[in-house]
Amino acid sequence: MSFNRLENKRVLITQSDDYMGKDIKNLFEEEGAIVFADNRDLTPDTAAQSLVKEAGHIDVLIANLAAVNPKISIEDTTDDIWNNGFDIMVHPLHRLVRACIPQMKERKSGKIIVMGSATALRGQKNRSSYSAARGAQVAYVKSVGIEVAHHNIQINLIAQNFVENPSYYPPEYIKTEDFKERMKEVPINRLATGREDAFLALFLASEESNFFVGQTFPFAGGWVV
Amino acid sequence: MSFNRLENKRVLITQSDDYMGKDIKNLFEEEGAIVFADNRDLTPDTAAQSLVKEAGHIDVLIANLAAVNPKISIEDTTDDIWNNGFDIMVHPLHRLVRACIPQMKERKSGKIIVMGSATALRGQKNRSSYSAARGAQVAYVKSVGIEVAHHNIQINLIAQNFVENPSYYPPEYIKTEDFKERMKEVPINRLATGREDAFLALFLASEESNFFVGQTFPFAGGWVV
Amino acid sequence: MSFNRLENKRVLITQSDDYMGKDIKNLFEEEGAIVFADNRDLTPDTAAQSLVKEAGHIDVLIANLAAVNPKISIEDTTDDIWNNGFDIMVHPLHRLVRACIPQMKERKSGKIIVMGSATALRGQKNRSSYSAARGAQVAYVKSVGIEVAHHNIQINLIAQNFVENPSYYPPEYIKTEDFKERMKEVPINRLATGREDAFLALFLASEESNFFVGQTFPFAGGWVV
Amino acid sequence: MSFNRLENKRVLITQSDDYMGKDIKNLFEEEGAIVFADNRDLTPDTAAQSLVKEAGHIDVLIANLAAVNPKISIEDTTDDIWNNGFDIMVHPLHRLVRACIPQMKERKSGKIIVMGSATALRGQKNRSSYSAARGAQVAYVKSVGIEVAHHNIQINLIAQNFVENPSYYPPEYIKTEDFKERMKEVPINRLATGREDAFLALFLASEESNFFVGQTFPFAGGWVV
Repeated sequence: MSFNRLENKRVLITQSDDYMGKDIKNLFEEEGAIVFADNRDLTPDTAAQSLVKEAGHIDVLIANLAAVNPKISIEDTTDDIWNNGFDIMVHPLHRLVRACIPQMKERKSGKIIVMGSATALRGQKNRSSYSAARGAQVAYVKSVGIEVAHHNIQINLIAQNFVENPSYYPPEYIKTEDFKERMKEVPINRLATGREDAFLALFLASEESNFFVGQTFPFAGGWVV
Repeated sequence: MSFNRLENKRVLITQSDDYMGKDIKNLFEEEGAIVFADNRDLTPDTAAQSLVKEAGHIDVLIANLAAVNPKISIEDTTDDIWNNGFDIMVHPLHRLVRACIPQMKERKSGKIIVMGSATALRGQKNRSSYSAARGAQVAYVKSVGIEVAHHNIQINLIAQNFVENPSYYPPEYIKTEDFKERMKEVPINRLATGREDAFLALFLASEESNFFVGQTFPFAGGWVV
Repeated sequence: MSFNRLENKRVLITQSDDYMGKDIKNLFEEEGAIVFADNRDLTPDTAAQSLVKEAGHIDVLIANLAAVNPKISIEDTTDDIWNNGFDIMVHPLHRLVRACIPQMKERKSGKIIVMGSATALRGQKNRSSYSAARGAQVAYVKSVGIEVAHHNIQINLIAQNFVENPSYYPPEYIKTEDFKERMKEVPINRLATGREDAFLALFLASEESNFFVGQTFPFAGGWVV
Repeated sequence: MSFNRLENKRVLITQSDDYMGKDIKNLFEEEGAIVFADNRDLTPDTAAQSLVKEAGHIDVLIANLAAVNPKISIEDTTDDIWNNGFDIMVHPLHRLVRACIPQMKERKSGKIIVMGSATALRGQKNRSSYSAARGAQVAYVKSVGIEVAHHNIQINLIAQNFVENPSYYPPEYIKTEDFKERMKEVPINRLATGREDAFLALFLASEESNFFVGQTFPFAGGWVV
């Protein structure tokens, strides 16, 4: 059932094979969007700018940036592990936004949705580097949201956790006691499907959500609200 | 353009002539809902229960409860003014929820959306009684959300501010310097339309948002995020 | 070891035999305060005003208001149970504040500390009525804080949970598996002593915290931060 | 008037000539602490570790890290400007914490206080890079707080804004209309003194605050609460 809610909208999705990339691509195309799903490495200095240039007119940027989320103690979080999160999830975010803002300002229209994490909002043991990088995204979105609001550009963030994902929650893990124990922390007591998550992205990408700016939307089954 | 996103959903809207009642009714009917728009006084002890009984099967409850929001100092907030906010916005909320939960538990399905206020989240001068009542709603939704989540019932709250409304923002006021001064606080620098607000209610009433429980959604143009 | 941090400060503590009353009284007296510990029932309309009148000059009001926190489902939360929380913890709070503000404005000096609960900030199953009442306190403090800040009056709130208390955590309960299970949710993995809680109240009552207004301080061992 | 609240506590303050360094040093020494005030550049990879090694036994780490807070648009925030904030305020924070945790774990005792910023919690125009770096700190402290809580180590963060500071608020600026306009946003309508800010750091460094872990304390005169 499709409603063409993104008819003819040109959407750029980064790191499109990872994290929420595929689910968003599928749903957005059903809804009539023209999706540029790009999977290049965005860590090189000029990669984001090149990508935006190639994509041309972008109505909606899905800043889908994901590094591995290592379960590791503070002491074992080496500089390399630490930097990896920032290099993949934080610095390219700014470069992507910086590259898109001028054309959006010119058209007085644009949507940016950052696929972030609820670990930015609630701490977890052995996740210090991942949390820190995700926290940078949340605060960045707050300030950018205010800066560009009067240009009719809306940037918002989805702070997700507990979304089905073969790498974070492989089928064999879902059968374990450890998984059941973790689910006790999640009031809704299940994982979200990727499609459910994509529906929130769709809402934020559509013209039905123009009054939100710089906002973080927890999407975590009640784990954070 | 309607997508029938609420096809055949039975929706109860309380205090339907006030606050967001009309905008939600209009949009929800466009989207295929069967709307019971009721405008009775819900302050009597048994009013909420009678209403729910009369409405019968309720898929979606829109707890739209609004008292006047007096601009008044602490010293001038008499017990009557104080109680009025709780009598209209807080106590009936519990009675409505209590009356709806049993049927929703039985069907293992239900949505409750509380039309609340962002003044619960960010203080304002001379609004102490209104803030307090709205704050009770926010915390109530958090706890109820957790309690009923595993029954596949989702209760969430819209914490709105700066939404067009002839009583709060009459056309003559919108032309004043005072209004322009207030808008400086609102990053998006405009009021929302009632329809924009109703779109958030629609998202929360639809099957596209089943992973949210007990959550508060600021809707305030960036004033709170 | 006492530092006389409240030397000659006149402090009114309400419901002084309950909740944090005794611990605050003890610590504040050690620190040189003149404490009026009053234990009257504050539910009658005029009780708060009479109390403030009797106490006379009040430098610091400790709004220590506590009803039982019933563990009870939504359906079983009768109007009486519901109202009880508001009658004891919410309405007297406004009456106390309203009665104290005039003298504090006149002296351009005053501190109000509300002994609230972290259940206002994070939901808990079967605690809907208690959460709602505590949530009203949090939002009230936000708005009052802004309203009186420029009179050099500071009102703030302690949102506590997991504090030693013979009624909530009787010694026999602390030995149970159920208690150990609950402690898993609390990062610090222990209860606070009442004295630790009183130290936060002391900080907020002293002249060392004059820059805080309308703020809520979670005090819950990391359960909310 | 000193109370020796940090008697014989060994305190390391980083970047001691900047931000809150001097005020904290002065107050902590009055309170009996043995302060190691160090002003080295912490951007080199091994600088934090060397510093901690030289300092030896550290009871309290004051992670006082401050880069310039450029007022600059998104488009003008070059990679160099962007990285500067992370290089000075974020990466050294992890290295300092990582270097201190082992000795604190061994002694089952330690306090870490991060001198952060309220701009992590509430957006500001033209502050995107600074906000992002400060946001990383907030989320980092949340996760580290949970990870080390059971070792009796407490890490917390002060999210300050509107504190007297000759570089951010030079005397000539304080006389301008622009400054008065900004103060309208701050409910308390004044700047904090550095000493007031140091009192919060003192509270968090003392044994009177052992129940807080991973928490962020807004210190901003009501601008965020």
